[in-house]
Amino acid sequence: MLEPFSDEYFMKQALNEAQKAFDMGEIPVGAVVVCQNRIVARSHNLTETLNDVTAHAEMQAITAAANMLGGKYLIDCTLYVTLEPCLMCAGALGWSQIGRVVYGADDEKKGFQKNAEKALHPKTTLLGGIMEAECSTLVKDFFSSKR
Amino acid sequence: MLEPFSDEYFMKQALNEAQKAFDMGEIPVGAVVVCQNRIVARSHNLTETLNDVTAHAEMQAITAAANMLGGKYLIDCTLYVTLEPCLMCAGALGWSQIGRVVYGADDEKKGFQKNAEKALHPKTTLLGGIMEAECSTLVKDFFSSKR
Repeated sequence: MLEPFSDEYFMKQALNEAQKAFDMGEIPVGAVVVCQNRIVARSHNLTETLNDVTAHAEMQAITAAANMLGGKYLIDCTLYVTLEPCLMCAGALGWSQIGRVVYGADDEKKGFQKNAEKALHPKTTLLGGIMEAECSTLVKDFFSSKR
Repeated sequence: MLEPFSDEYFMKQALNEAQKAFDMGEIPVGAVVVCQNRIVARSHNLTETLNDVTAHAEMQAITAAANMLGGKYLIDCTLYVTLEPCLMCAGALGWSQIGRVVYGADDEKKGFQKNAEKALHPKTTLLGGIMEAECSTLVKDFFSSKR
């Protein structure tokens, strides 16, 4: 059993979201936003369903969390996302001044760290590699099934 | 009179959008998306109104244009925006594979070119400085009025 409120615990929730994306034929990325051990937003990639390149899991999670909390800054929140954020999402996370970002698998091609290391707010802490195997397997399985 | 369908003509439309943002107390940035000389989306910054850091003019314009055109790629479109896009918006424009981006004033601090020059799609052409004076004056007037 996963220890409640651990990084793995919340990443598992993000993975559940990614699985929903997978089941819809979307590239399987999921995210949750956590504030004081409470999940305040859950989302998964919807770019195909919504015909909208901006509908990444993280973007929806930021919007939903701000709505839920009633303010646009997420200073006391942590975003858990199964894949390293892209430039767009990292830029959005930067504007949100989110306290912490935890991701699962690296994204060698589109991850923000290769292209704009300083995209996040200087006070945001970043941790990668949580449940990396599960997160990357889901993406690999998705692309294998499309071939 | 502005020559119809020139870059200045469409930038003036983006400036009209920026003025709407100004009048609402939003940082005055406006955008239009043009496809075959037709404006398919108009938008302005709504981050304060919507309490949402992702509600930049460009993000809304991308979503609205994709909705209007029925597809998420904007290969045959041009985005006109009064201020150089930030990292988030440039990342989104990259995903959209938009054909051309035309902006007014440079954004020395938050513009994408300083932080991630390669954010746009390799096939996207970029032009800055169209109606630069009008675009930057509006932003300067906004911040002066807030002091």
